[in-house]
Amino acid sequence: MKVYLTRRYLFSAAHRLHAAMLSEQSNRDTYGKCNNPHGHGHNYFLEVTLSGPIAPATGMLCDLADLDAIIRREILDRFDHQNLSLLPEFASLVPTTENLTLSIHQILSRIALPAHLESIRIEETGNNSFEYAGDLAPRR
Amino acid sequence: MKVYLTRRYLFSAAHRLHAAMLSEQSNRDTYGKCNNPHGHGHNYFLEVTLSGPIAPATGMLCDLADLDAIIRREILDRFDHQNLSLLPEFASLVPTTENLTLSIHQILSRIALPAHLESIRIEETGNNSFEYAGDLAPRR
Amino acid sequence: MKVYLTRRYLFSAAHRLHAAMLSEQSNRDTYGKCNNPHGHGHNYFLEVTLSGPIAPATGMLCDLADLDAIIRREILDRFDHQNLSLLPEFASLVPTTENLTLSIHQILSRIALPAHLESIRIEETGNNSFEYAGDLAPRR
Amino acid sequence: MKVYLTRRYLFSAAHRLHAAMLSEQSNRDTYGKCNNPHGHGHNYFLEVTLSGPIAPATGMLCDLADLDAIIRREILDRFDHQNLSLLPEFASLVPTTENLTLSIHQILSRIALPAHLESIRIEETGNNSFEYAGDLAPRR
Amino acid sequence: MKVYLTRRYLFSAAHRLHAAMLSEQSNRDTYGKCNNPHGHGHNYFLEVTLSGPIAPATGMLCDLADLDAIIRREILDRFDHQNLSLLPEFASLVPTTENLTLSIHQILSRIALPAHLESIRIEETGNNSFEYAGDLAPRR
Amino acid sequence: MKVYLTRRYLFSAAHRLHAAMLSEQSNRDTYGKCNNPHGHGHNYFLEVTLSGPIAPATGMLCDLADLDAIIRREILDRFDHQNLSLLPEFASLVPTTENLTLSIHQILSRIALPAHLESIRIEETGNNSFEYAGDLAPRR
Repeated sequence: MKVYLTRRYLFSAAHRLHAAMLSEQSNRDTYGKCNNPHGHGHNYFLEVTLSGPIAPATGMLCDLADLDAIIRREILDRFDHQNLSLLPEFASLVPTTENLTLSIHQILSRIALPAHLESIRIEETGNNSFEYAGDLAPRR
Repeated sequence: MKVYLTRRYLFSAAHRLHAAMLSEQSNRDTYGKCNNPHGHGHNYFLEVTLSGPIAPATGMLCDLADLDAIIRREILDRFDHQNLSLLPEFASLVPTTENLTLSIHQILSRIALPAHLESIRIEETGNNSFEYAGDLAPRR
Repeated sequence: MKVYLTRRYLFSAAHRLHAAMLSEQSNRDTYGKCNNPHGHGHNYFLEVTLSGPIAPATGMLCDLADLDAIIRREILDRFDHQNLSLLPEFASLVPTTENLTLSIHQILSRIALPAHLESIRIEETGNNSFEYAGDLAPRR
Repeated sequence: MKVYLTRRYLFSAAHRLHAAMLSEQSNRDTYGKCNNPHGHGHNYFLEVTLSGPIAPATGMLCDLADLDAIIRREILDRFDHQNLSLLPEFASLVPTTENLTLSIHQILSRIALPAHLESIRIEETGNNSFEYAGDLAPRR
Repeated sequence: MKVYLTRRYLFSAAHRLHAAMLSEQSNRDTYGKCNNPHGHGHNYFLEVTLSGPIAPATGMLCDLADLDAIIRREILDRFDHQNLSLLPEFASLVPTTENLTLSIHQILSRIALPAHLESIRIEETGNNSFEYAGDLAPRR
Repeated sequence: MKVYLTRRYLFSAAHRLHAAMLSEQSNRDTYGKCNNPHGHGHNYFLEVTLSGPIAPATGMLCDLADLDAIIRREILDRFDHQNLSLLPEFASLVPTTENLTLSIHQILSRIALPAHLESIRIEETGNNSFEYAGDLAPRR
């Protein structure tokens, strides 16, 4: 028996899309106004989906306070109110929302979570979201 | 050929999270302010996902008025504007949103629906949702 | 020069609508399912609107951390995850959202806030909201 | 390695639900007020989900400007601000949202897209959505 | 003492924007794709704002069931799932959302409501809304 | 006779909150993580409210395409996908959302608009908004 929990967090960050492998012209063609040298920013909504059985004693999949503490320490303290382009995670990786989604999935895959990690989804704006579920198709 | 319909309903209910198996102290540690003896409440958004082929004559998966009548009779009349902690469904089950999701899935699994039941999802607040899909992974 | 800030908070609470002045029958007629003796609950979105000039040194109307600390201490700690019907504020007042709006306005009117209090608005559900602005018309 | 992008578009259209195979009475019973002869309309939110690997050079699944140009040319120019009941796509098909979802999936399945088409989802109102993923279960 | 209630309703309708006073060319220039002869449609969110004192006995501004019955009878039964361009209200009036807002305000101004009518607001899409408050500035 | 139109636009930008008049320590105390030297960013929702009579010939307050062209040229081209801290508008002004609201109001006050400018409102996140209406109280 398996239930799915999706919990939503908000963080705000700046980034500039610029790929070292591409020429200046190619960067402008690829990223358009997102290539502006001084950067721009977004409010990112992060959704973390966990799964597992309901614990019979408590009726809960996991303690949300435990999950919140982990996400705060591992993700929000690292990315919130930062310029993504200047962080070590993106030293050799363009800070697109695709790569940010993957990066957050990798961080959370390597540590103990209070239930099984199913997928990571990030809304860049209300019209755009990216999801990654490791080797699995995302399930939500 | 299979399409998926997701229909959204709202109900408001009170509950107190308190597990009979746990000590008073353990209840406070586990549920925090949700263990407050007088209860508190939520607006719950319920999403019911059904699937099946489109009927060639009507172009519809099912008649939404039929689905609405079933959900009203089986779910909303039972849970809306109630104190979940005092209902027979939660006599020996803590009324967490996890158990509420499971309980609604079980009620709807036992009766005839106008299309195949895929999954049940409940939003407790805009930041928190739970989903259950029986033996299947939820598909939406 | 006057700017307006609106800041949004969430709290969850139970209540039962029952007026001591009215007969049992009249209570049922007036409040319908909201008169259910065991109570029910809501997620309440509270919007606090403040106004004033922008401080030239900081470019801010006020420090949001200060406002958040006040709202937490005066409002959220008092009402969040509580049964409104059992609180002293509603000992002789029916805990309708109208009265809850008025009550929060009165609490905030009596204390020092980091800018001028313009109005209080509460969303009971996405389809329903109440606003109070003291002797003024609400301005938002 | 596979990420999922979901992109959201809005279009507004009129339709009348009326099935040629059914009698007048049966049309009224099946579609209710949606059978009103003069039609009515909706704002439709269309969500297109694509999947694939992240391109190492750009950090992107695909260029959103390319996707937007295709959706504009193939879908929005065809359906936005139109009466669906009068379009060739619905000459012999009732323009229900189920059939509209299927129809958009078929149009996009036949052309080259900048990444793999996973599913099409349409919100008819905030309470109602339909999804189609071809032979696969929708993955989002 | 005056509180403000805002209640939200949804209706779906078709319309075509075409002004009898203007030439065909001028109609196309003015309304663009909204002038398409076969019409298109929208989901309209209607917000009705009423004001008045809280009744001491009940703690309510008014009975929402009463308000809902009036809005259903006077507004939703008239406009929901209709083609606005074919209704008597728009026989000599272009069915823009501006005129629809005004028209609903006039209908509600002429009948007894359970509290004072403050203003009418219609959202045509999430990006567009119109408000009318009679001789007063809208207050919300 | 006066109707109010509110139209919503989205732009994304980076900024760093840092006041030249304040010491480093005072900047950190005042702005907290918003003072991070490398900046961060937001999706800003801008709402522009205009008012005036409905033109009898067209049934419209104004042509939305005209308004959109002005907002694109004067506001979005200037601020979207930029680092606000590096723009001339904020050379001697801290780019708080309060000052951004005021700045957009001033830009739009000095040019011809297709109807009377009532107020400017900016949502920094879903929990935070600022509004400015010149010498008037905002009316919406």
